[in-house]
Amino acid sequence: MSGSTFGKQFTITTWGESHGKGIGCVVDGCPAGLSLQEADIQTYLNRRKPGQNKFNTPRKESDVVEILSGIFEGKTTGAPISLLVHNQNQHTKDYDHLLHVYRPGHADFTFEQKYGIRDHRGGGRSSGRETVGRVAGGAVAATLLKQLNITLNAFSKSIGEIIIPTKAYDFAEINQNPFYMPNATYAKETAAYLEHIMKQQDSCGGIVECIVTGLPLGLGEPVFDKLDANIAKALMSIGAVKGVEIGDGMDVTKRRGSENNDAFYVSDRHIYKQSNHAGGVLGGLSDGAPLVVRAAIKPTPSIGQTQRTATKDFSACDIRIHGRHDPIIVPRAVVVIESMIATTLADLLLQNMSSRMDYLTAIYK
Amino acid sequence: MSGSTFGKQFTITTWGESHGKGIGCVVDGCPAGLSLQEADIQTYLNRRKPGQNKFNTPRKESDVVEILSGIFEGKTTGAPISLLVHNQNQHTKDYDHLLHVYRPGHADFTFEQKYGIRDHRGGGRSSGRETVGRVAGGAVAATLLKQLNITLNAFSKSIGEIIIPTKAYDFAEINQNPFYMPNATYAKETAAYLEHIMKQQDSCGGIVECIVTGLPLGLGEPVFDKLDANIAKALMSIGAVKGVEIGDGMDVTKRRGSENNDAFYVSDRHIYKQSNHAGGVLGGLSDGAPLVVRAAIKPTPSIGQTQRTATKDFSACDIRIHGRHDPIIVPRAVVVIESMIATTLADLLLQNMSSRMDYLTAIYK
Amino acid sequence: MSGSTFGKQFTITTWGESHGKGIGCVVDGCPAGLSLQEADIQTYLNRRKPGQNKFNTPRKESDVVEILSGIFEGKTTGAPISLLVHNQNQHTKDYDHLLHVYRPGHADFTFEQKYGIRDHRGGGRSSGRETVGRVAGGAVAATLLKQLNITLNAFSKSIGEIIIPTKAYDFAEINQNPFYMPNATYAKETAAYLEHIMKQQDSCGGIVECIVTGLPLGLGEPVFDKLDANIAKALMSIGAVKGVEIGDGMDVTKRRGSENNDAFYVSDRHIYKQSNHAGGVLGGLSDGAPLVVRAAIKPTPSIGQTQRTATKDFSACDIRIHGRHDPIIVPRAVVVIESMIATTLADLLLQNMSSRMDYLTAIYK
Amino acid sequence: MSGSTFGKQFTITTWGESHGKGIGCVVDGCPAGLSLQEADIQTYLNRRKPGQNKFNTPRKESDVVEILSGIFEGKTTGAPISLLVHNQNQHTKDYDHLLHVYRPGHADFTFEQKYGIRDHRGGGRSSGRETVGRVAGGAVAATLLKQLNITLNAFSKSIGEIIIPTKAYDFAEINQNPFYMPNATYAKETAAYLEHIMKQQDSCGGIVECIVTGLPLGLGEPVFDKLDANIAKALMSIGAVKGVEIGDGMDVTKRRGSENNDAFYVSDRHIYKQSNHAGGVLGGLSDGAPLVVRAAIKPTPSIGQTQRTATKDFSACDIRIHGRHDPIIVPRAVVVIESMIATTLADLLLQNMSSRMDYLTAIYK
Repeated sequence: MSGSTFGKQFTITTWGESHGKGIGCVVDGCPAGLSLQEADIQTYLNRRKPGQNKFNTPRKESDVVEILSGIFEGKTTGAPISLLVHNQNQHTKDYDHLLHVYRPGHADFTFEQKYGIRDHRGGGRSSGRETVGRVAGGAVAATLLKQLNITLNAFSKSIGEIIIPTKAYDFAEINQNPFYMPNATYAKETAAYLEHIMKQQDSCGGIVECIVTGLPLGLGEPVFDKLDANIAKALMSIGAVKGVEIGDGMDVTKRRGSENNDAFYVSDRHIYKQSNHAGGVLGGLSDGAPLVVRAAIKPTPSIGQTQRTATKDFSACDIRIHGRHDPIIVPRAVVVIESMIATTLADLLLQNMSSRMDYLTAIYK
Repeated sequence: MSGSTFGKQFTITTWGESHGKGIGCVVDGCPAGLSLQEADIQTYLNRRKPGQNKFNTPRKESDVVEILSGIFEGKTTGAPISLLVHNQNQHTKDYDHLLHVYRPGHADFTFEQKYGIRDHRGGGRSSGRETVGRVAGGAVAATLLKQLNITLNAFSKSIGEIIIPTKAYDFAEINQNPFYMPNATYAKETAAYLEHIMKQQDSCGGIVECIVTGLPLGLGEPVFDKLDANIAKALMSIGAVKGVEIGDGMDVTKRRGSENNDAFYVSDRHIYKQSNHAGGVLGGLSDGAPLVVRAAIKPTPSIGQTQRTATKDFSACDIRIHGRHDPIIVPRAVVVIESMIATTLADLLLQNMSSRMDYLTAIYK
Repeated sequence: MSGSTFGKQFTITTWGESHGKGIGCVVDGCPAGLSLQEADIQTYLNRRKPGQNKFNTPRKESDVVEILSGIFEGKTTGAPISLLVHNQNQHTKDYDHLLHVYRPGHADFTFEQKYGIRDHRGGGRSSGRETVGRVAGGAVAATLLKQLNITLNAFSKSIGEIIIPTKAYDFAEINQNPFYMPNATYAKETAAYLEHIMKQQDSCGGIVECIVTGLPLGLGEPVFDKLDANIAKALMSIGAVKGVEIGDGMDVTKRRGSENNDAFYVSDRHIYKQSNHAGGVLGGLSDGAPLVVRAAIKPTPSIGQTQRTATKDFSACDIRIHGRHDPIIVPRAVVVIESMIATTLADLLLQNMSSRMDYLTAIYK
Repeated sequence: MSGSTFGKQFTITTWGESHGKGIGCVVDGCPAGLSLQEADIQTYLNRRKPGQNKFNTPRKESDVVEILSGIFEGKTTGAPISLLVHNQNQHTKDYDHLLHVYRPGHADFTFEQKYGIRDHRGGGRSSGRETVGRVAGGAVAATLLKQLNITLNAFSKSIGEIIIPTKAYDFAEINQNPFYMPNATYAKETAAYLEHIMKQQDSCGGIVECIVTGLPLGLGEPVFDKLDANIAKALMSIGAVKGVEIGDGMDVTKRRGSENNDAFYVSDRHIYKQSNHAGGVLGGLSDGAPLVVRAAIKPTPSIGQTQRTATKDFSACDIRIHGRHDPIIVPRAVVVIESMIATTLADLLLQNMSSRMDYLTAIYK
């Protein structure tokens, strides 16, 4: 396997299963001298927690983070930062009936095929709970980015058929509704929409968008570790993501070159783009405009309706999933996506430091 | 930088600029004992070459590959395979007027900002010609996959507004038209569509799809090197790609769980899926169904129309790009996308070999 | 930084400081289906603990390991294995006087220069306690090797001037004396030798040797990840190691080719070497003979004698180190070296699985 | 395999066989803006070439390097630098008789076992000629180091029993004798010594030492990518190297702590060491004193004397190697070792740039 580490200079290594002892993350390569406290990370983890509303799983996940290493007197020392979140409130018995059954839309079948063994309790390593490690690590990255005045805003752009147009965004609203939507009216509409779906014991998908401002020019390492390439990997590695777009994304396929090119203009001896169809990335490098990224989140696969499936010993059977599941993953995915983007950016920021001889001479003068 | 290597066990390292001496690729980690000849690679490179029709650049690129190492008596030896394609027919003078001007939609501006120096001749390293190295390396991967009865079919699913529905696919048609489209009628329609666009000195985008059959179950390395994650990176690292979809992609965002889940069924003591909304990937691992991937290709940024832009010394100016450019990149991108997917799959096939103790005991018995 | 991960397919990522909350290791890439229990790891950690004799630090380190993830019903699942050892019995106050003083032979000065910040308590990340993580991870590797009938024997070959000649080795003695020496007589001599040194408030160095049998032929990945290259890195990355030898090591420099070459012979349709000057490695690959590796361990830098040194604010001063230190590191380094070799071998065993097409077809038939 | 790339930020990927079309190296991650010409690299390759004297192989290797990419108007652009040296003067027929025979001390046997196929011509990839790629890449690294006023001096410290004591070093002599020895008298003695050995159709080994001055403090990435660890790997990955020492190396094993510790002193508000037993590395980081590294080179395995060996089909036989071989590898290994150290240092210099937040704010202000 060996796929548990992400990044090259700034890396996160995550571990842990849904119903094991805990979930953790080791952050390596974080520069020394960054102020970092448990509260910085807890804030991020709290955004991932199921809310106190009817649109979330009734599972209680306290998810308290503990920093085990890498900090001395409130600052990073350059040593690896080990983060631990103990598992609690696991109802392992809820999963006993899944010991031999493969849930549609889940990784039960493929994990068993790959490894010949499977921790069926809550999906084990393939559980959405795995993202606790990503958020813990991403919070460290985000703290670093903040020091450099880089701002990330992730939010739900759509839930099912409710789609918020760009011009209706109001970032101040994001934390004011249970869906992390940048518009109060659409959030209200979404609540009604979801109640309808829940009554049908069904679930739905949506789009998470993230807009990043303040990035230095030139981030990304051609030709394979481009900014957009690394972000695409970062997001597609999240369980429920089925599509990733940069800037105008899939829409560019219907555009003309004359519409899609962003013209340059000059202002005060700086060069800017008049539009941002490219989403802040030209040739795989940040171009000074806001980075705009979207991820398509699939509907929660765990639904109450009866589904046809198969067992380990090749019997067909029906399954109804009762557990404690979210009818919609999108709102809780918002912080996961922001975290993965933060981690990717922190890594590329460090990598970019060695791109020019004059940077070397500045440091090794 | 150091972003010129892709993969972990089966790796490609590419190099070369548009107007330098050549383009190359070093393939490392290819298992010994694979029959491989220059012809295997040339076939792939030929698919990337501008065709003999009016929809392509009139540039002639012979692109003859030479194998410099790693082969002995027609077989791979386990040593790195160095592939070289000399550049020819470069009209460097065509680019003299671009020395100080940033072309909209190109990487001129960002490369200059990142590196403080820029090879302006044909875009240098950021040129589409860079993909010669990807195709050469991908051809080696594809040869390996073929040995394991894995089949890749990449094609143009859409060009501009002409979109071929899935049920209209006929793979036998792919190589029968200049657009690598799996349908003759749509191809004819596309020809007319493109002529219209070319008259306007404009360009357009489109979608490339790739369908892979014959994959073993369980490919992909959770949680960060998942099959879909690595493919997303592979494709988004290609210059013109702005979006990547797996299976139903962006469309899942409007679906219900009850629609989107693929039910399992049993046949002859094997387990299959009744539908394939997931595109052959569950939990980041191949699930036995065909792998379905799509990439959104932006319109060629080089167009004949006048565009507003800026120069290195901060003057605003107009630009008209005369060179020898494709009005549409999509058809030539088909083999690039197939190559990147082949490389990703070869790498994950090798990585997966150490996923189980019984595989170890099989080999080290 | 980002230097906390070792290996490529089978990786260990370690974290933790001497006086922090604990030390840990995340093992990634371990094949699924390996029986593994805390006891397997504890056995290794116990060999690293200070013994109940006068030649060790009187510090009590219980070092109980906890497996936090990656195991289900006694077997590895392919998911990362997180190992945690809580720190206990830390006397942080012992180090208060070192806040501004750089201990000779320690990393105090260089860490402060590199990071601009330093956890002075017990050396922080640069402490010998860091090796707890290596041993925990190495124990997992060793458990895997055992399944494949690969045997590692590490021991003290010399302590100070007491050197055990190869012909006097008796592996049965290794665990019968406090020095992990393969000879009882030499061990007795060593005890007297060390008492003398301790009276002088001094310390001494020595050689650890490790002999590995049962290795498959051909392990190692030319040209940079050769078996001997990766082992050299593995051992030299341990704090106190200043030299690494394979086979006859430094002695080959005085040899003739006619003496140093190991002649081949045939027996029962297998090919063997008549001698083993090469130490089991030819061209960077295992050659069927026992792998023979030695590491030179420097004397414990912490000594009771007065030493001249400097403070952070550039004053000269004297230092006498009172703490609870080993007069000799060698015996406790034995298991650390065995662990690093085990980790290196496990990694190369996994990498080697993709070296030949017939291995691929065996697994993907 | 996939072991053909060395380094993490500044990487070299080498390829090529002794009797293939050529040998090459792709340097990736070299900062943009470094002046680099073919002459810079040729100078290094020339030091590797067999000299015009009786102590070298009579093979003529012109080894002219060509830069294929990555340079624009005499400067690096940040793109990968592809270096190519065509093979010439290969006497492939000389190796026909080795098709089925395994030469003692060579990698013939192990390569065949690992890969099931072997390029027997001149040893294929396992030939000493492979080091052409290392030297070409290392020359780029050395050019970078020179810009930062870092100086490398590699030389033959011993050949067989002729050992030059440290106090007799005169670096001005290194290029004045065929052995790259830092002392004319010892060089003369060596000539006589080697003539004697050559008469016996034998060969001998020796020690190469490299001393590096001007290194910034703090290079090295704990805990696994320490300066000494990465250098140990770099050197042990060279075919003929059997031992690596840092500073006093194996001798520390017989020392007392009171002798081995380097005391610190203060001068002009800087801290220095009074001695340098540690060889310039404390805790895996450069400590300001000269870096001192030694590698043990084994005797050339190709000798004219009759040796016992075996064939591929398990027959015992005699072998006498007639080819055109060096009686001593040491002098030609000098530049190879210097190159590998340069590459390692360049990589760690780049990695170190992200070790501190104040470096980030300096660059991203």
